[in-house]
Amino acid sequence: MKKLRIGIIGVGGIAQGRHIPAFLQLNDICQITAFSDVNIDRARETAEKYNIPYVFEDYHELFSEVDAVCICTPNKFHAEITIAAFEAGVHVLCEKPMALTAEECEQMVTASKKAGKVLAIAYHYRFMKEAQAAKKAMQEVGKPLVVRVQALRRRKVPGWGVFTNKDLQGGGSLIDYGCHLLDLALWLMGNPKHRTVTGTAYNTLSKIPNQVNQWGSFNHETFNVDDHVTAYIQFESGASMLFETSWAANIKDDAEHLSISGVDGGLSVFPFELYTTKNGMLLNSQAAWIPGEEEPGLSQARNFIHTCLGMEELVVKPEEALQVSQIIDRIYESGGNHL
Amino acid sequence: MKKLRIGIIGVGGIAQGRHIPAFLQLNDICQITAFSDVNIDRARETAEKYNIPYVFEDYHELFSEVDAVCICTPNKFHAEITIAAFEAGVHVLCEKPMALTAEECEQMVTASKKAGKVLAIAYHYRFMKEAQAAKKAMQEVGKPLVVRVQALRRRKVPGWGVFTNKDLQGGGSLIDYGCHLLDLALWLMGNPKHRTVTGTAYNTLSKIPNQVNQWGSFNHETFNVDDHVTAYIQFESGASMLFETSWAANIKDDAEHLSISGVDGGLSVFPFELYTTKNGMLLNSQAAWIPGEEEPGLSQARNFIHTCLGMEELVVKPEEALQVSQIIDRIYESGGNHL
Amino acid sequence: MKKLRIGIIGVGGIAQGRHIPAFLQLNDICQITAFSDVNIDRARETAEKYNIPYVFEDYHELFSEVDAVCICTPNKFHAEITIAAFEAGVHVLCEKPMALTAEECEQMVTASKKAGKVLAIAYHYRFMKEAQAAKKAMQEVGKPLVVRVQALRRRKVPGWGVFTNKDLQGGGSLIDYGCHLLDLALWLMGNPKHRTVTGTAYNTLSKIPNQVNQWGSFNHETFNVDDHVTAYIQFESGASMLFETSWAANIKDDAEHLSISGVDGGLSVFPFELYTTKNGMLLNSQAAWIPGEEEPGLSQARNFIHTCLGMEELVVKPEEALQVSQIIDRIYESGGNHL
Amino acid sequence: MKKLRIGIIGVGGIAQGRHIPAFLQLNDICQITAFSDVNIDRARETAEKYNIPYVFEDYHELFSEVDAVCICTPNKFHAEITIAAFEAGVHVLCEKPMALTAEECEQMVTASKKAGKVLAIAYHYRFMKEAQAAKKAMQEVGKPLVVRVQALRRRKVPGWGVFTNKDLQGGGSLIDYGCHLLDLALWLMGNPKHRTVTGTAYNTLSKIPNQVNQWGSFNHETFNVDDHVTAYIQFESGASMLFETSWAANIKDDAEHLSISGVDGGLSVFPFELYTTKNGMLLNSQAAWIPGEEEPGLSQARNFIHTCLGMEELVVKPEEALQVSQIIDRIYESGGNHL
Amino acid sequence: MKKLRIGIIGVGGIAQGRHIPAFLQLNDICQITAFSDVNIDRARETAEKYNIPYVFEDYHELFSEVDAVCICTPNKFHAEITIAAFEAGVHVLCEKPMALTAEECEQMVTASKKAGKVLAIAYHYRFMKEAQAAKKAMQEVGKPLVVRVQALRRRKVPGWGVFTNKDLQGGGSLIDYGCHLLDLALWLMGNPKHRTVTGTAYNTLSKIPNQVNQWGSFNHETFNVDDHVTAYIQFESGASMLFETSWAANIKDDAEHLSISGVDGGLSVFPFELYTTKNGMLLNSQAAWIPGEEEPGLSQARNFIHTCLGMEELVVKPEEALQVSQIIDRIYESGGNHL
Amino acid sequence: MKKLRIGIIGVGGIAQGRHIPAFLQLNDICQITAFSDVNIDRARETAEKYNIPYVFEDYHELFSEVDAVCICTPNKFHAEITIAAFEAGVHVLCEKPMALTAEECEQMVTASKKAGKVLAIAYHYRFMKEAQAAKKAMQEVGKPLVVRVQALRRRKVPGWGVFTNKDLQGGGSLIDYGCHLLDLALWLMGNPKHRTVTGTAYNTLSKIPNQVNQWGSFNHETFNVDDHVTAYIQFESGASMLFETSWAANIKDDAEHLSISGVDGGLSVFPFELYTTKNGMLLNSQAAWIPGEEEPGLSQARNFIHTCLGMEELVVKPEEALQVSQIIDRIYESGGNHL
Repeated sequence: MKKLRIGIIGVGGIAQGRHIPAFLQLNDICQITAFSDVNIDRARETAEKYNIPYVFEDYHELFSEVDAVCICTPNKFHAEITIAAFEAGVHVLCEKPMALTAEECEQMVTASKKAGKVLAIAYHYRFMKEAQAAKKAMQEVGKPLVVRVQALRRRKVPGWGVFTNKDLQGGGSLIDYGCHLLDLALWLMGNPKHRTVTGTAYNTLSKIPNQVNQWGSFNHETFNVDDHVTAYIQFESGASMLFETSWAANIKDDAEHLSISGVDGGLSVFPFELYTTKNGMLLNSQAAWIPGEEEPGLSQARNFIHTCLGMEELVVKPEEALQVSQIIDRIYESGGNHL
Repeated sequence: MKKLRIGIIGVGGIAQGRHIPAFLQLNDICQITAFSDVNIDRARETAEKYNIPYVFEDYHELFSEVDAVCICTPNKFHAEITIAAFEAGVHVLCEKPMALTAEECEQMVTASKKAGKVLAIAYHYRFMKEAQAAKKAMQEVGKPLVVRVQALRRRKVPGWGVFTNKDLQGGGSLIDYGCHLLDLALWLMGNPKHRTVTGTAYNTLSKIPNQVNQWGSFNHETFNVDDHVTAYIQFESGASMLFETSWAANIKDDAEHLSISGVDGGLSVFPFELYTTKNGMLLNSQAAWIPGEEEPGLSQARNFIHTCLGMEELVVKPEEALQVSQIIDRIYESGGNHL
Repeated sequence: MKKLRIGIIGVGGIAQGRHIPAFLQLNDICQITAFSDVNIDRARETAEKYNIPYVFEDYHELFSEVDAVCICTPNKFHAEITIAAFEAGVHVLCEKPMALTAEECEQMVTASKKAGKVLAIAYHYRFMKEAQAAKKAMQEVGKPLVVRVQALRRRKVPGWGVFTNKDLQGGGSLIDYGCHLLDLALWLMGNPKHRTVTGTAYNTLSKIPNQVNQWGSFNHETFNVDDHVTAYIQFESGASMLFETSWAANIKDDAEHLSISGVDGGLSVFPFELYTTKNGMLLNSQAAWIPGEEEPGLSQARNFIHTCLGMEELVVKPEEALQVSQIIDRIYESGGNHL
Repeated sequence: MKKLRIGIIGVGGIAQGRHIPAFLQLNDICQITAFSDVNIDRARETAEKYNIPYVFEDYHELFSEVDAVCICTPNKFHAEITIAAFEAGVHVLCEKPMALTAEECEQMVTASKKAGKVLAIAYHYRFMKEAQAAKKAMQEVGKPLVVRVQALRRRKVPGWGVFTNKDLQGGGSLIDYGCHLLDLALWLMGNPKHRTVTGTAYNTLSKIPNQVNQWGSFNHETFNVDDHVTAYIQFESGASMLFETSWAANIKDDAEHLSISGVDGGLSVFPFELYTTKNGMLLNSQAAWIPGEEEPGLSQARNFIHTCLGMEELVVKPEEALQVSQIIDRIYESGGNHL
Repeated sequence: MKKLRIGIIGVGGIAQGRHIPAFLQLNDICQITAFSDVNIDRARETAEKYNIPYVFEDYHELFSEVDAVCICTPNKFHAEITIAAFEAGVHVLCEKPMALTAEECEQMVTASKKAGKVLAIAYHYRFMKEAQAAKKAMQEVGKPLVVRVQALRRRKVPGWGVFTNKDLQGGGSLIDYGCHLLDLALWLMGNPKHRTVTGTAYNTLSKIPNQVNQWGSFNHETFNVDDHVTAYIQFESGASMLFETSWAANIKDDAEHLSISGVDGGLSVFPFELYTTKNGMLLNSQAAWIPGEEEPGLSQARNFIHTCLGMEELVVKPEEALQVSQIIDRIYESGGNHL
Repeated sequence: MKKLRIGIIGVGGIAQGRHIPAFLQLNDICQITAFSDVNIDRARETAEKYNIPYVFEDYHELFSEVDAVCICTPNKFHAEITIAAFEAGVHVLCEKPMALTAEECEQMVTASKKAGKVLAIAYHYRFMKEAQAAKKAMQEVGKPLVVRVQALRRRKVPGWGVFTNKDLQGGGSLIDYGCHLLDLALWLMGNPKHRTVTGTAYNTLSKIPNQVNQWGSFNHETFNVDDHVTAYIQFESGASMLFETSWAANIKDDAEHLSISGVDGGLSVFPFELYTTKNGMLLNSQAAWIPGEEEPGLSQARNFIHTCLGMEELVVKPEEALQVSQIIDRIYESGGNHL
């Protein structure tokens, strides 16, 4: 079997921390052939380290050496590069969020269809063991009624990178962190259509000078993204979602929580638990062992490659990632926006 | 000092479980002089048990023997009796919810003002030690941003009384149970004006035959109230509230949760905890001891009597209870209603 | 409906602690009409306390005043009284163990059949909520392979009553205490035929003078029953049981343990837990709520009465109690007996 | 002092994971001089890695270069190699179980005695700190009455190696895993003679296709060893043992349990706990610190070498390992065998 | 056997809460025949309640109706009444502390000896099960080296009685509360002679107005006793004691702690734990069961009566209670006194 | 900026474990230029490993190549080398304790002042996050009243180095280990003057042959330092301290405890907790996050260098370390000394 040739665009933290190691480990089905980065020095150093043959400053030049690209740039460039890749006939695995706006996402979907190439978005939470278990367990939960999502950090605004720059990232805690749990919740629900979206985005705390922050320091004056967001989403299926995400909440502990109460039972994803009725009893169940890989990035990369090779169905479909971006847009546009 | 003469209207569970014991214990400042109940036999038996001189079938006759009444009837009669009491020049402590609708509540407020008599609503959660501690601790929390409210029971639809009868009660889990935590949350926030209210009321589970239920059995066919409600409320102050209440949720455990993240810190009410920053550190604090009474119904009764006697300020003001009913109305009217 | 008239034979601890309160509470379907006891003074006092009309020293005289008897005498008299009762046309609820030997048990079964009257044995553990839940859950466990039974007390030889008297009781820890868990295990397994029984009965510790004992003191010289028993039972179904019971074990804590590993899953009874596989995962489940009564003696009495009245099927069938006694006989006869 | 020259026969997992590191660490008293393996490539690679001078395909050639051998082959070859070694005048440390059958074991003992050379069996559990502590604590326990042994894994059939091959290994969970705890229990008891052995060996679960398994996958069709075994052993001393081992039990958790109730007290080995009576009190004691090495394989190797050098007494005597194999034979022969 | 006739002098809280119930329960060996109290009304009411024949305002009159008295007055009157009792030929059980000063205590001892009557002091902590267990376990601890005593309450100054009145009580937290643990520690040590006593007594907190206090309110202006005391005591045996007691400490939790490190081992009394070395190991042991009565006041009363009747040896000897008072005197006199 | 040139005198465990790594990490502000050690071979090897240019056997020769020295020799040489360093115009960071006696310490302070060079003592516990948090939190505690210090190890006499040699070290558990907690306590208190010091130093256990010891073995015959010390210290401020340290205590667990009860609140350092009153409530608070470095040795080295460079104030002032030595002297001189 011919191995899929892969190019990485943007070789910063997320590329080196998750995608490159995953593709290297899957060396029976793919090989990384090229890097590109506007920071050409960083690209060259990294290429040398991993023994990657091609390095480019301009990503357009990379397309000829690869069958697929993994896009790891700031959010602002996701759409543009994705569309260019499809024009060059190359499959795309794009980091989350899919793009800055739902409109851009739609253009990406159109380009993908036109090119007949795979478009995957790196919502890797779906590949966690607990998430896979929860997806299967939805058959015990039945039709979802109430969904609760919390992606909360206590005083942990990222003090590095471009995370607090709205032009490059399109937003803060919601578009960067909360999007993962939002995508996971929608997927578990079966991606029903959203009927209403109401939300409030705050950046009150981070605009105050000298705040206590666990993850380094940042400039409160130039900080212009959300650091705390609440939202309420109603679906055509009748379900409703209570949603909250934050980088800087005044809470007891960090919390990643996703639970669903359905008509037949309920579940929590982290940790995986199931709440059911059986023989007139109420039962609580936990996983004693879940099969699967510890590293979700590895499963994600394999699913992308297998999809490109026509061997498997894509797990994170672009239409689903688009819905995430549509809801994020609606929250940011919501009358309650306090930015 | 002359003792306040008190009449009880409706001598069922809530009267015998909370109000009568409280007034009896406060026998230095009040005395129960009369009972009335449409179930005159129950009224007579109970009067005999507690040695109460007057018993009436028609509550109008009771007013001449009392200075104040405690109304413990089904919700449907709260407004009518309250207004009649004020016309008779009698103070009123009315069980929660204040009435079936906000409109009725407004009439009660008007009647109270016209009569110059006290109108108190029995939102007794406010008198719990933890609630009192939290009210004081709001100075450490600062301006509230995000408020989370959960009043959840797992499969505990009340199988007794009139709780599942919409005509008499006006609703189910929200108007009967969730209202307490909603009132408490609004009070801690300082009762800011609500700007938007979006909600969804379900009775999906309770309409299914043969459901597992911990609190007796009920007729799923005649069941016509909500058993699960979610809502999202935005306030003019900029705060937002994520709200959920249920009698029949598919969840792990019953949960009474109320937490607030403010600009300066955060708190949880049950148990009382405080999340603050100090000397560059993040601190979590718990109460090792809170002064006050174990029984909130006793504090509530004392505050009502002291207010009637002009010795103290009322804790649960009718305008605040009116706001609770306004929000409940808005949730029930919300487009997401699934009843 | 006519109420079942009930007589109690032997009004000592077990009668007053479990059976009399249960029958009194079930006063809509039965009434206690007579007591008999060789200690006639105790019988009279107790009758006066509970307002029971008839009291007899000789139990034969009691039969004419009752429809059913509950036998609470020392084990030695179980068979004789039961057979006499059947001859008098009276139903029987007999305390456990069924009798001193399996041979006596068989005579009781024969007498019951001949008389066409109900014979129930008071293995009340079966009526515990956990036991009822486990019985239903056997469908998840599938065919039983390995059964583990522990009914262990640490240094708690009963220092009262006739428990250490072999003539009256037939044995010690096994026949008095371990029999409950043995019966429960057999019932959960579906009472398969036993193929081999090997066991060892000890009374080593209790024959040593001045032993530490938590439940009063006893005469080590006259002590002539087992205080610790181990056994291994193989069934025709292929299942095997590891069994241990004791009054005086040198162990960490008292332990009541009954677990079953089957072909499809496993369970523990105390507390009720279920170990299954689902979607490729290993799941552990606990009961969050089990319906039923707190007091198993009440459920047992109701089942007995309902069976006598032809309204329900008997839960503890005499043939099943007979199997318990057969196994006990085999253990006591086993070559490993150290008494 | 001259160092003992050691040869390793079979350089697979157990040799590389336990024995080779131990002998290397004890380089003041021994040196590994030779490897032999039917897989000569593996032997050469490993020898190169550890700088071992001699490598042989045929183990007979190895004897001339060593004073002692450590046999790490499949169980089938233990007896043959051991006897050959003794004929060559070489000491033997043989992996457990001693051999496929008790008969083979006896031949090994005879050969050892004839040659006057040391024969040690690698029951390394005895060298664990907790086991050493328990051995000393038997003086507080007194004469053993009841011994409980559990060596249980939940759905962990080894999916690698030759573990599920009866020809090479002689059995499954009992001969490979349960043997360790059985040996340990016998040693703590003082290796009393066994009087009766009754057992049941299952392979029900592993013969079912597509079972959930935590340790890789195996062919259920060719699987022909036991995956679950129960047994009951009575000793001439009066003691009795309840024994269970499994690779595939439907249980809550893996469990390694060994507890003994004696005439004077009781103990548990994992973790080490002691249950005694003192001054009329019941005491529970735990080890706050136990002296000794973390790695039992190291202590085992040292004891073997010291015994070969005449400096110490052998801990695991071949007659004791023979008893383990005798009991295993009896269990496998037991009428209850379900294979 | 003739029952000991007992008189109670001072029928307040401690008499009614501990001593009267104890003597009533021991009605096979004693009977309460008389009460005396300066509050004659209280004495008469209580006598009526318990059916006590004689009541006196002046305690001198009581002596003729009793064989023994139990003195429960404020500390100031302990010595005077005790001496009068001995002059009247009556045995004495006197509440702790023995008296206001060591000098008074010595006079009491002298009077006791002269009269040949029993003098017991109610240091009832010694009769707690844990204390009895610890006394026996001192044989494992060996010669005591370091003793740590904490009798600490967080903000619990008694807001009732005469506890904060120095004239009547002689002191505060030390003489009223800490004395119990001090006595217990000395007794476990074998009452070795004290060589040096250095201490500091504080009343800093309680002199500050409006302090948070869990046990009612008190007048900070008239408060004139110690609320927190530290001390260090060296013994001729070589042992040293670190001592602390308080009614009002700013600490995490209330704490009653007494631990001893000896030459052979160590122990803690609450809960009872033992720290020893055995077989080269370090062991920690806890009591799984301690024989004895739950109520130490009952054991104390029985020991007093049995001593009066010549059947048993006195547990709390007056010379030992005298040593407690000597040390308390030395602490109060210590240069570090901050009152 | 010119980097501070640093010399290390004594390159044993403490130098290699703490100081050398810290100075190497701070390579932007300092560089290690020279080593000296009486064990010149060890010095040379270590210098080679870290690429240090100069190595000397005689420390006097080192001074010309450095601006500052870090003294890591046995305690006996601290004073002599420090004074020589100052005479050579070199700053000094000296390991704790400051010297063998307070008298030596005073000479060091005098020499420091005369030379105008920095003298820091390595009481690095002060640089732990919890200690820094506690220092700031003293404002909530208010004026200290009672201070409790425990630095206790169970049977852990150091079996290596010179720790049990009184000539070289001046003492045992107190001067080597307890000094850290004593220094920390004094610093948190604000180093008030001590008014009385009473203490007892034991070496009872370590003089007994064949004691169980967790940290290697030692010669009980030559052992001549303290292994357990208690002390009581009264301060002119009115505060009192209960102090205990040990290497060999018969206790449950090792314990490092330092708590302070002040007029306004209390605190514990390990873990950091705060006990306060607020709004009439008692609050307990813990740190959820404390800023700062994990490695206190790094902060200590930075503070020393910054002080030498005139950029920061010294944290551990020599006058404070002197007070520690004064108190240690007084404890060792105390009449209770049992050595």
